[in-house]
Amino acid sequence: MAVEHGGRRQAAARQFGLSPSAIIDFSANINPLGPPPGLGAYLARCLTEVAYYPDPEYGELKTALKRWLQTTAAVVLGNGAAELIYLLPQALRPRRVLVVEPAFGEYAAAARAAGAQVERLILAPEKGFALAAADLAASLREVEMCFLGHPNNPTGDFLLDRETLVTLADRYPGCLFVVDESFLEFVPGARPDLSVVPFVGRYANLCVLYSLTKFYALPGLRLGCAVVAPVLAAKLEECSPPWRINVLAARAGIFVLQQSGYATYTRSLVGREREFLCRGLEELGFMPFPAKANFLLVSLKAVRLSGTTVQRALGPKGILVRRCASFPGLGDHYLRLAVRLPWENRYLLRLLTSFVGEPEGGDERNDAADSHSAWGDGLELPRTVPGS
Amino acid sequence: MAVEHGGRRQAAARQFGLSPSAIIDFSANINPLGPPPGLGAYLARCLTEVAYYPDPEYGELKTALKRWLQTTAAVVLGNGAAELIYLLPQALRPRRVLVVEPAFGEYAAAARAAGAQVERLILAPEKGFALAAADLAASLREVEMCFLGHPNNPTGDFLLDRETLVTLADRYPGCLFVVDESFLEFVPGARPDLSVVPFVGRYANLCVLYSLTKFYALPGLRLGCAVVAPVLAAKLEECSPPWRINVLAARAGIFVLQQSGYATYTRSLVGREREFLCRGLEELGFMPFPAKANFLLVSLKAVRLSGTTVQRALGPKGILVRRCASFPGLGDHYLRLAVRLPWENRYLLRLLTSFVGEPEGGDERNDAADSHSAWGDGLELPRTVPGS
Repeated sequence: MAVEHGGRRQAAARQFGLSPSAIIDFSANINPLGPPPGLGAYLARCLTEVAYYPDPEYGELKTALKRWLQTTAAVVLGNGAAELIYLLPQALRPRRVLVVEPAFGEYAAAARAAGAQVERLILAPEKGFALAAADLAASLREVEMCFLGHPNNPTGDFLLDRETLVTLADRYPGCLFVVDESFLEFVPGARPDLSVVPFVGRYANLCVLYSLTKFYALPGLRLGCAVVAPVLAAKLEECSPPWRINVLAARAGIFVLQQSGYATYTRSLVGREREFLCRGLEELGFMPFPAKANFLLVSLKAVRLSGTTVQRALGPKGILVRRCASFPGLGDHYLRLAVRLPWENRYLLRLLTSFVGEPEGGDERNDAADSHSAWGDGLELPRTVPGS
Repeated sequence: MAVEHGGRRQAAARQFGLSPSAIIDFSANINPLGPPPGLGAYLARCLTEVAYYPDPEYGELKTALKRWLQTTAAVVLGNGAAELIYLLPQALRPRRVLVVEPAFGEYAAAARAAGAQVERLILAPEKGFALAAADLAASLREVEMCFLGHPNNPTGDFLLDRETLVTLADRYPGCLFVVDESFLEFVPGARPDLSVVPFVGRYANLCVLYSLTKFYALPGLRLGCAVVAPVLAAKLEECSPPWRINVLAARAGIFVLQQSGYATYTRSLVGREREFLCRGLEELGFMPFPAKANFLLVSLKAVRLSGTTVQRALGPKGILVRRCASFPGLGDHYLRLAVRLPWENRYLLRLLTSFVGEPEGGDERNDAADSHSAWGDGLELPRTVPGS
C-alpha cells in the first residue's frame, strides 16, 4: 500500500507488545463512542445470513439511505467509500483530475491508478487552508474530475460553502465534482443545510460520497455510498462487481441509520470535546487549525517538534497519532488528532505536556489523567464495544 | 445488474410469500452443509472488531492462504472473487479478452466494463462442451487475457487438463490466463494434482482465482483471492482501494482454512450426491452432462421442457433452480442444478417427476421425499446454520 493511513492499531500492538484493546487511537477519525448500542447483539442474530448471497439490489438498504439522505437521486453502494473513490476514475477515465491538497491520500492514488494526470491545488497554511473560489475556478480548466472534502480531511474544516461549490459545478459542467461528505455527520448543525446532496438532482456533474464507517464506527465492516444522477449510477454499476456489500454491512447500515439519539449525542460530545482539545492544545503552545469535523490538524512549528517524534514517543504508551509528512502541502511539523472520549483527550493532553513542560492551570486534566496513569503500561480499561 | 445469477433467495421469498429459510436453493453453487461448525460462534466473538479498521496488509490471512495453497507466489485478496474478475481487466486494460463459453457471466461483463473487446469461443453441447487445445490456441492470437473455469461454470467439468493449459500459457506469453478455480475444492482428488497454482511461479502470465465463499458457504461475507506473480500483484494492489476485506471475512478465512475434516466430508458427500442426482435425472429422461464440480448442467431437450417453465413451477414451492437462457452457447432448454443435501436432492427429483410422469423403480426417492412433503407448503425444517 503506497498511501499512508492512520488506524494501524494491530500493527502498533504487535510493534509495542500491547493488546490491541490497550490502544487509544487518535490516528483514525472514528466516532469515539464506538458503534451504536445494540448493534453487536443485532449482528449476532444476523450471522446465519453469511451463508447466503446478499440481495444483489440491496433494496432495503438503498431505501433506508435515501430516506436518511432525503434524496430521490440514485445511490450507488460501495465496500467503504474507498471503493467508490477508485471506481469513479476507473469508470469515467478522466484525463486530468484535480485534488485540492492537503487531502485524503486515496483521491490522488485512485486517479493515478486509472491513468489520469493528477493536478494539485495546494492550500496555504498561512491562510488557514482556505480555498478561494477564484483559485479553484482557475484550476478547473481542462479538468474532468475534482475531489473536494466537505469538510476536508486532514484540515478539518469546509473548503467552500456549498453555494459556491454548486455555482462552480454550474459553471464547469465538463468536470465531475466529487464531494466527499464522509465527515459531515460530525459537524454541528443540520445536514440538509450543509450537504450538497439536495443539488445532485439538478447538476448531473455532482457526486456526493458518504462513508458510514466513520460516524457509526464500523470501519471493519466497510460501507459507503455515492449519491449521483441516474445515468452516472448506471455507469458505475456496470463497471463494478455484484455483491459488493457483505450481508452484515448491509444489515448494520439499516440498523445504524435509525439511531438518531446516538447521532445527536455524538455531535454534541464531539463538538464539546473538539473545543476542549483545541483549547488544551493551544495552552500547551500547539497550534490547532479551526475545525468542524471530528479531528484537528495541529501545527507543531511553535513547539519545535516533528510529528514523527511525537508519534514515536506516544506509540509505546499505546497512543496512536497521525503524523502528516505524507500529505502534499503539509510536512512533518503537523499532526492530525481525532477527537476522542473526554478521559482520552485529557490523557493525551497530559502526555503532551511532557514535550513542552507543564501548562498553567491544568488541574482538571491532570486529575483526569492521573486516574488512568497505569493505562499506558498495558492495563486494559473498559472500552466501548458493540452491543455493550 | 446486467448479468443474471442464481442465489436470489430473498427476492424469491418476497415473490412467493415464503420465509427465506423455507427455500432450498439449487440455483447457487454453495456447499449444502453450510459454513463449518463453530464458525458462527467464532464470528460472534469477533464482532467487537468491526469498530476498527482491518489490518491493511492482512498478513495473517495471506499467510494462512499461502500455506493452504502451498504456494510462495503472491496472493491478492478480493471482496469475493468477483472483485478480482473486475480488477484484472481494469488494471491491465487488455484490448481483447477471450471467454470460453458458456461461462460465468461476469467474465465478459468485467472485460466489457474495462473497454475490452470480448471474443467468445463457444463450446458445442454435442461434444460435451469439451475444449480442444487446438481450438483454444487458434483463438488466442491477439488476445491479451483469457478467462477459463477450472472446472468451468456452468458446465461442471474441466475444460482442459492443467498440463495442456500450462503448455498454452508457455506458448502465449502475451496473454494472461485467468484460471478460475473457485469450484476446484469440490472435485474429488488432491488439489495440488489438479490446480494450476504450482505453475504460477514459473509463468508470469498465469493468474489463479479462488473463491472461499462457495466451498465454505460464506457468500454473504465475500472473500476471494488471486495467486499471481509478484509484479502483477503490485499492479493489482496499486489499482484497488485499501481495506477491501472486511474484518469478519478476514477472520472467517483464517478459521475455515483449518477445517480439513469438513473439507474432506464435503467432497465425499458432494461426490456421492452428484452421482445420485445425475442418475436420478437420467432415469427421469433429463440429460445431465458429466461433471466434477458441485453442480450439474442438465439438458431439457429430451423431456421437451424449458428452463423457465421448470423454474416458474418450482419457485412457489420454495425450490430455486438456475435456468440458462443468459449463457452464450446454451439456451432455455438447459438447467443448472447445485448438488445439495441427500433429502433435498431426493425431494427435487420427486418434484421433477411431475413434469415427466412417474419414474420406474423410484421407491427410495419417493420415501425420502414423502417424509418432507409438507416442506413445499412453507413449513420450516431444521437447516444447517453457522455455529450450530
